[in-house]
Formats: sequence, structure tokens, C-alpha cells
Amino acid sequence: MKFVGVDIGGMSVKVGVVTDKGEILFKKSAICHPERQDSEIAAEIASLINVVIEESGVQRSDLAGIGIGCPGSVYDKKGVVRYSCNLNLRNTPLAAWIAERVGIGNVRLSNDANCAALGETLFGAGKGAMNSVMITLGTGVGTGIVVDGKLLTGNKSAGAEGGHIQIDVGGRTCGCGKKGHFEAYASATALIAQTKEACAKYPDSLLAKLAASEGVDGKLPFHAARAGCPVAQRLVKRYIKYVGMGLVSFANIFYPEVIIIGGGISNEGDAIIKPLQRYVSRNVYGAEYNPKIKVVAATLRNDAGIVGAAALCM
Amino acid sequence: MKFVGVDIGGMSVKVGVVTDKGEILFKKSAICHPERQDSEIAAEIASLINVVIEESGVQRSDLAGIGIGCPGSVYDKKGVVRYSCNLNLRNTPLAAWIAERVGIGNVRLSNDANCAALGETLFGAGKGAMNSVMITLGTGVGTGIVVDGKLLTGNKSAGAEGGHIQIDVGGRTCGCGKKGHFEAYASATALIAQTKEACAKYPDSLLAKLAASEGVDGKLPFHAARAGCPVAQRLVKRYIKYVGMGLVSFANIFYPEVIIIGGGISNEGDAIIKPLQRYVSRNVYGAEYNPKIKVVAATLRNDAGIVGAAALCM
Repeated sequence: MKFVGVDIGGMSVKVGVVTDKGEILFKKSAICHPERQDSEIAAEIASLINVVIEESGVQRSDLAGIGIGCPGSVYDKKGVVRYSCNLNLRNTPLAAWIAERVGIGNVRLSNDANCAALGETLFGAGKGAMNSVMITLGTGVGTGIVVDGKLLTGNKSAGAEGGHIQIDVGGRTCGCGKKGHFEAYASATALIAQTKEACAKYPDSLLAKLAASEGVDGKLPFHAARAGCPVAQRLVKRYIKYVGMGLVSFANIFYPEVIIIGGGISNEGDAIIKPLQRYVSRNVYGAEYNPKIKVVAATLRNDAGIVGAAALCM
Repeated sequence: MKFVGVDIGGMSVKVGVVTDKGEILFKKSAICHPERQDSEIAAEIASLINVVIEESGVQRSDLAGIGIGCPGSVYDKKGVVRYSCNLNLRNTPLAAWIAERVGIGNVRLSNDANCAALGETLFGAGKGAMNSVMITLGTGVGTGIVVDGKLLTGNKSAGAEGGHIQIDVGGRTCGCGKKGHFEAYASATALIAQTKEACAKYPDSLLAKLAASEGVDGKLPFHAARAGCPVAQRLVKRYIKYVGMGLVSFANIFYPEVIIIGGGISNEGDAIIKPLQRYVSRNVYGAEYNPKIKVVAATLRNDAGIVGAAALCM
């Protein structure tokens, strides 16, 4: 069987036809008009799905379902988008509308980050795993959790907000306003803040000099650490420890086969993956009796959303 | 249909016949002989099950299955007890052995704390809920997690070790040897340690005086706080904040309908439940868009194990 995967973004919608092995046979994207009425947005998406099915050459009778990943708060079981910051969707029964307009009954909906986690788990960095935690280190910290091959989204899909677990009593203020959350230590935003603090404290360090000439982003401390700056090396080591603490919390709850690191920071590759692997292996509870939990970087990149959305129907 | 629930302890085995509404129709217990061979232990349990079925007057054809809760590391899906501190069970295929000896094919096995959480969720403090987190504040901190009416035990049943999530960077040393874990702040053992520290620091406080005359246990700080001791009141307030931080971490991952507090500390009733409810309601992520998460004390007490074990088969 084959499946349609839809990845809705604030700027574009991507639609692909996906095999049950997670291969994309054909895909196409279109500009999204986020300011339009929700019924118009649904009509545009349905129209793109119809075009993609047509142009892919796949028979409709070969399609087992349509999966949709959408940013924002999505009530998976009801197929409803509660709200989305970037799109004009409010309590929109998107799954039902797409089903009606495309003429395929089996339409599933989930949050876009959850879909990416499902895609990476089943067909990307976690290939073959049935249990995973994907941690996306970006502007915030996103978490997508797969248990027995299915997304865990919490009651009424309100859970999986793992960026907001406590890792420090009191501590740094999170984007959500509370103190000591994982996201306030482990996001790229948090790393940038930590880098700026280190530059202010050590103005003669290579880190501070590079910051002055290149500006500060999530790559800078890794770059300066590779260039031998001890301030940057300490900074990176401490940052990785913070990330590791969060990973171990998830590992102790879920004991997944694999933890997948996504987001911009994961581009640092072994510089972050290897020390995180060591931290998790050393600190997870019961490691001596249980299989090793692998820590890996995400691999599907921009296709994770389409593949993962399709996987909602598998 | 009816079910058999078996609650194995270090000292005794309890067996009951349970309805699909969680009522125990008949129950009986027997002394356990933990030093015996695992095959003998299984034979004893099977024999007690046969006696209970017989004496309950329930027809065998009315029994849909047998659920067993066992202390230690249990591999649920395989029906195997990997090891148990208190019983001579090592890689014991207990489910298969019981099935053979009782003549009922459908036998399920899980950890005893998980069974208690399942029982409390479906038929006790969480009655009607399908998603819950049970936190047992005792010598350690136990966690039992129910998602869509089923236990979440992690890959190879190695997860749900929620006492070992990080809540403080560095911080107090946990029973497992790592620093800053939830259990090191929220267990009854941790509360006793915090109480002793407060007594040493404030030797003239009512708390210290009561400690000297009565000894220190998990009830003492609550008792002294009720009697008006400001040192104890601050101590209890801080302890509840620690517990609350852990609850909010679980709430942000699972967004359960209910959080159930078990263990000796839960006997303090409203003195701990009401402030924990306030803490969770104020601090959970997305509370403004989502239903309230109820915080309640466990109610089934000693029957939770039998009822929850039976519920493994429901």
C-alpha cells in the first residue's frame, strides 16, 4: 500500500506519496496563504493532494490513507487543529474537510514536530526502532515520543511538551516564563545566551573575539572549541551536560531504543552526539541490566515531515 | 467476564477474583516462601489460584484471564521475571508456568507497582480516567504511568523509573548514586533527611523538640507544621514544591487526566494534596487551553495490587 503525507508549514505545504517503507515516490510543494479562511486553506491543501496523486501516477485504490502534520495545537484523535500560531486555523476539523474534498476516508492528523519524530523513528535515524524520543534543539526544545511504533501525545494531545520538564530548582527562566526548565538550558537560544555570558566574562578569549567579528549563533561555541579556545570548550561541555540531563530524564521514563537529536545543533555531528552518548550510557538507570540506548542525529531533514505524516496511517 | 488478580509480595501472595468493574468477589492470601526454587514458587502460586477459583464459586469458563503483579524487573511482553530482590526468581517464565499449571491460557505479568497504578487509575482514585501518572512517595519514589488505559513500561519494560528524572543540576545524592534526581528530594526518605537538617539548624524549634521526643519520620514535619512551628511549615512548603516540580515534569510529558499520589506521605491528605493541586494547576504548560489535571490521593490501598493485576487482562 501507499500513503499520502502532508507537511504544513507557515510558508508552504509539502505533499508526497510515500511507500510503506518510507520512500517518497513523488512530492510537490505549494505556497501557503496563512491569512486566508481555514476552509480556503483546506481547499488549497486538498487541491495540492489531488494534483500530487494525479501526477504521481499512483492509483487511488492503492492509497491507504492521508496523514497530515500541522504546526500548533492539534487534537489528533478528533482530527482537529485547535489553534496554530502561523496559520489561520482555529478549531478547524481539517481531517474531515480533507477527507471530503479528496475522497479518501482515512485521514489522520498530528502536530508537525510529532510527525517528524515518527518519520525519523520509523524510517530515518531510528530506522527499525519501535520506541524513541526525538529531541529537537532549536529556538526551543521540541520533543516527539514514539511508544510501540505510535506517537505519544498525552491526554487530548496536550502532552509531549518535554522542553518544559524541570532540570534545575529555580534556575534560568524559560520561554514559557517558568524557571529551571530543560528548554532554558538546552535550546539553541539558551546556548546563545550562555555564549554571550561567557564572552562578557572572558572578553580576551578566542570565543569573545570570534563573537565580535562573526556574531553569536549556535555554531560559534563549537567552532571556537574546535579552534582550541578553553572558554568555549568548557561552555560546550557544560551545555552538553545540560542536554544530557534532559535526555536521561526521558530515558528513565521511556527507556527507548534510540534518542534522536534534531534541530540546528544536531548539525555539529559527533562533537555533540558522541559526548551525549557517553552521558546517557553512564547515567541512565538500570543500564547494567538493559540494552544500550543509542543516541543519534536526525537524518531525514526536510523529508521527515512528509514521511512521518504518511506514517500516521501505517 | 471475571478475572483473577495475583499480587506477589516478599512475604505473602494475595489472589482475588475480580469483576470487570474492579470489584473483588473473593480473595485469599498465603505465605510466600521466597527462598524456594522458582518452579516451586510458581507451583505454590498456581495452587493458591486454583483454591481461590474453586472457593469463589466462579465458573472457569467465566474467567477471561489471570494477571500477576510481581516485585522486581519484569519483562511484561514475554511474561518473564528477570530478577526480583525479594524472591528467588531469575529469568523465570512465570506467566507460562502459571498458565500451564492453572489451565488458563491468557496470563499477563507486570511489575507490582505498575499493577497498583493501573488498579488505582481504572478503579480507584483515578476511576474513569484513561491516562494517569501515579507517584508513590515512600522509601523511594515509584512511578506508574497509564496511557489510554494501558501501562507504559518502556522498551523491554525497562522504563517508568520516574524517581530518577533530574530536577536539580548537581544537588542531593539519590539512592542510585546520581545527583539531583526527583527521588532525592521527594521520597519519604528525603523528607526525613530534610527534617533532620532543619532540626540541626533550628534546635530550639518545636520541630526539633518533637523530633527529640518522638523520633523523626515522614509524618513529623506535617504534625509540627499543624502545631504552628514555622520551621516545619517552611520545610513542608519546600518539600511540596519539590514534589510539585516532579509532578509538573510528568504532566508536561503526559498531560494525564489525573495524578495519583500514593505511599505513606499520601496519608497526610489535604495537607499535601491541596497545595500539590495548586502547584500543578499553576505550573503545567498549556493549562489555559486544556482541561485541569486533577491531583488526588490513592484510595485502594492494599487491594490496588490485586485489582490492577486483574486489569492487565481487561
